[in-house]
Amino acid sequence: MADWLTRTLLSAAGAVINGWSWLSGEASATVVNQIVGSTRNRPHPWSTLSDYTSWDSLTDRTFFARHLPAATAPRMPPVEQVQVMFRRPPGGQRTSSKSTCLFPAFAQYLTDGFIRTNPVDPRRTTTNHEIDLCTLYGRNRTQTLALRLLSQDDGRRGRLKSQMIADEEFPPFLYPNGDRIADPQFDALDPTLFSHAQTTPPQAPYPPATMTPEKLATIFAVGGDRVNSTPFSAMVNTLLMREHNRIARQLEIQNPGWDDERLFQTTRNIMIPIFIKIVVEDYINHITPMPFSLHADPAVAWTANWNRPNWIAAEFSLLYRWHSLMPDTIIWTDAQIALADFTTDNRPLLRTGLDAAFSAAARQPAGELGAQNTGDSLLPVEIFAVSQARLNRLDTYNHYRVQFGMPAARSFADITHNPDVANLLESLYETPDNVEFYPGLFAEDRVQDSPLPGLMMRMVAVDAFSQALTNPLLSEHVFNASTFTTWGLNLIGATHSVADLVARNVPRRGETPIVMTQPTWSYVNTP
Amino acid sequence: MADWLTRTLLSAAGAVINGWSWLSGEASATVVNQIVGSTRNRPHPWSTLSDYTSWDSLTDRTFFARHLPAATAPRMPPVEQVQVMFRRPPGGQRTSSKSTCLFPAFAQYLTDGFIRTNPVDPRRTTTNHEIDLCTLYGRNRTQTLALRLLSQDDGRRGRLKSQMIADEEFPPFLYPNGDRIADPQFDALDPTLFSHAQTTPPQAPYPPATMTPEKLATIFAVGGDRVNSTPFSAMVNTLLMREHNRIARQLEIQNPGWDDERLFQTTRNIMIPIFIKIVVEDYINHITPMPFSLHADPAVAWTANWNRPNWIAAEFSLLYRWHSLMPDTIIWTDAQIALADFTTDNRPLLRTGLDAAFSAAARQPAGELGAQNTGDSLLPVEIFAVSQARLNRLDTYNHYRVQFGMPAARSFADITHNPDVANLLESLYETPDNVEFYPGLFAEDRVQDSPLPGLMMRMVAVDAFSQALTNPLLSEHVFNASTFTTWGLNLIGATHSVADLVARNVPRRGETPIVMTQPTWSYVNTP
Repeated sequence: MADWLTRTLLSAAGAVINGWSWLSGEASATVVNQIVGSTRNRPHPWSTLSDYTSWDSLTDRTFFARHLPAATAPRMPPVEQVQVMFRRPPGGQRTSSKSTCLFPAFAQYLTDGFIRTNPVDPRRTTTNHEIDLCTLYGRNRTQTLALRLLSQDDGRRGRLKSQMIADEEFPPFLYPNGDRIADPQFDALDPTLFSHAQTTPPQAPYPPATMTPEKLATIFAVGGDRVNSTPFSAMVNTLLMREHNRIARQLEIQNPGWDDERLFQTTRNIMIPIFIKIVVEDYINHITPMPFSLHADPAVAWTANWNRPNWIAAEFSLLYRWHSLMPDTIIWTDAQIALADFTTDNRPLLRTGLDAAFSAAARQPAGELGAQNTGDSLLPVEIFAVSQARLNRLDTYNHYRVQFGMPAARSFADITHNPDVANLLESLYETPDNVEFYPGLFAEDRVQDSPLPGLMMRMVAVDAFSQALTNPLLSEHVFNASTFTTWGLNLIGATHSVADLVARNVPRRGETPIVMTQPTWSYVNTP
Repeated sequence: MADWLTRTLLSAAGAVINGWSWLSGEASATVVNQIVGSTRNRPHPWSTLSDYTSWDSLTDRTFFARHLPAATAPRMPPVEQVQVMFRRPPGGQRTSSKSTCLFPAFAQYLTDGFIRTNPVDPRRTTTNHEIDLCTLYGRNRTQTLALRLLSQDDGRRGRLKSQMIADEEFPPFLYPNGDRIADPQFDALDPTLFSHAQTTPPQAPYPPATMTPEKLATIFAVGGDRVNSTPFSAMVNTLLMREHNRIARQLEIQNPGWDDERLFQTTRNIMIPIFIKIVVEDYINHITPMPFSLHADPAVAWTANWNRPNWIAAEFSLLYRWHSLMPDTIIWTDAQIALADFTTDNRPLLRTGLDAAFSAAARQPAGELGAQNTGDSLLPVEIFAVSQARLNRLDTYNHYRVQFGMPAARSFADITHNPDVANLLESLYETPDNVEFYPGLFAEDRVQDSPLPGLMMRMVAVDAFSQALTNPLLSEHVFNASTFTTWGLNLIGATHSVADLVARNVPRRGETPIVMTQPTWSYVNTP
């Protein structure tokens, strides 16, 4: 299954490998171009707006793009039957031998800012189509202003609002009185989503009556409507908020003439490439099945013919439903928390602090992504995804394999070596050509040495590279010291991982390494 | 002055010239890439939002981009003195020996749809940043719907609303009762601008009391707020509206199963590339000083590193103020009309029909663009442009020369061979480095065999190619028969000029050739 990426990486690596740890810039560029070149570049000819191409479909970015045109699935078994594909059989959750829970924690935070299906109409999206850290800063200028500490209110300049709790910096609370009334200074923010699942119709913009005042009092006022969905997500956001305020403080010292606005904007300029560096060099490198790492070199995109305006595709609003990565029980420093209790409740984070939170995430193995590994509580989410794929009329699994440069599966054994899953697929779909996109993605064998199955890994890699490295802050005439300051440019260059941000911003660091890849992991395919 | 473009064209032409008339596709591509490559590609690092780069400045497209950062002009003489640069001395208007009035007529229609300075704030723009024929279709979906003939009201599908007057098709009237009350079906349209000049604050959304009912009754309900500004502009729009309805009729016959929406959208899909073909192959070829023509081949952009999202620059909101191209008196078929009377009055067009209008434009020489050739009535517009450049803090003329690959002028003779103009520049600015952008652009010698001076010609060519050929309808996976139908794709291929559209849509054609280049013109530099 890993043949394609393995070959791609090895062909690049064969030429220039730096001590089997980081690929050189040139070799990284070759790999990135080969991966992205496995499918058609943008602009996509189709969107979810209409079944044919029109000026509206080419310009209305509130609809998702499509990698393949709308198609009616040849066979749509009742969703209750498809559900069996996902349901975990008795015997407990399979866990990943590669990923820690920092991997799903980061994946959720990244995708909640970037994919963003419109909860009222799943054909549409509320994304800005850029990695813009809207989870931290809000989706628009009004939201950003609500989150900023304006210097007329405070001597400090360029900062985000925050509060100190037991010597640690956290975002402000949204419900400071513990009642269901949000602080009016945050009225411009998107309402917090209190359910982990997509819901139709959307939640009312206030917390459900079942939320206890104790939980409610810990909800943060932040840019993203899902940042409070788990303490892991709130933990990533808190880290980024601290890094923002740390950078603003440094820039303020270095540039005493700058006003609040310039300090804030330049800090944000630095923060977004730092986040993108982590996306490529920590997160994507964790996903690839190779023991050496790719550099996030913005120059790769400067001459690439895949450098075209980003446009999130409908396929991506589905393929990132990685709920089986989350363990049934989260092992916190001071408690074991059932997954169902791990939502919209920041008490564990506030109680033990940021080091304990990251240590918990980085110590515990994640669940394994794939068929028959979803707990009962999350099965409705999988079913919702199957229905959403049908509503968006996504083409078959095999057609997407071909679109991303893989051969069509000719037998069910081409999809999975697990005979139970193969039999299940056959009972549902009769032939491989009938397999639907979403169940097919998850039915596949996991790629050896990767946390993902093959088609999903390709699609994630293609979109990550072709939409992260096209960020305007990384463009040829912007990625320089004028935009970031020399200090800021060096800081971007020196950042490679979540661990780097933790080291800068978390007091009283413990001994747990902050990693997405388990420290005991060893690659089977090491050349 | 023409050395650069001459060399560029000749070096390409030296290889492959098709009978000294059309450059081959390959030679055209070479020329286009060399022209666009004379300056930095997008994204531009700066916009009119702030003096430094920020996420807002890189994403808020209601501000203009900048080719150079904000700068304070080293010398800003009182605008009344600068006015002398533009004022025509006694002795009558210089006329162009190359251009007919079809050239300014088309230029105005094109730029009114594409540049669009916000009349309230000249740092901002209302453009969609694409050549989208918003002059014909409106700037957004609501406006487009107001202009469409919906099939539930009418058997015909895919059409724009129109009316027949003396066997000729025109847009509907906006003030059907001849009073100052607009037809409410057109409430969604931008209000017609009744002044030729930019005004601050903007006009009220109804016609001024000085408008006679006779004029008012001829104002068309159209997409663009300046389409009614002269009968020439209304004439171009009428031609395009007829071509839209002609194409929709053909598609309706060929595709009996298509509904109103699909017929409309596919017609628009075809119309936009047709318009872009005319922009490059008729209008830009008229501007270049060479006797052979460039092809508009969409494939040039597919691998070009200048294929980056369009973003209209502040410099372009100024350099297209080509008012001296308009003669003082328009020689219509049946009357001579003073320029001051040629505004917001479609009676000449309605009285004589579309053939007479295009014939009048194509028969009469245009004015010559350059210093000291603006009539008194348009001098306030020139002064407004000088002030707008200062307000937007555009850098000096010499810095823009360098930015577009020209050597800085070291003497005033490097700018103009006209000693009067050189003396005037010296009295205003002392040294060439002090010359402001806007007066410098117009003070320059006109390029031999081109209607434009040198820096302006470069800037127009760079932006025309790099923003027309990047249209999403021309992109690699969209420019095909699925988007246009095979018939539509062939029609796009067969369209090269305004004359082609006139031949298809104007009954009772006269003998005047519909050309931007005067039929008697001969190139001095013919190799």
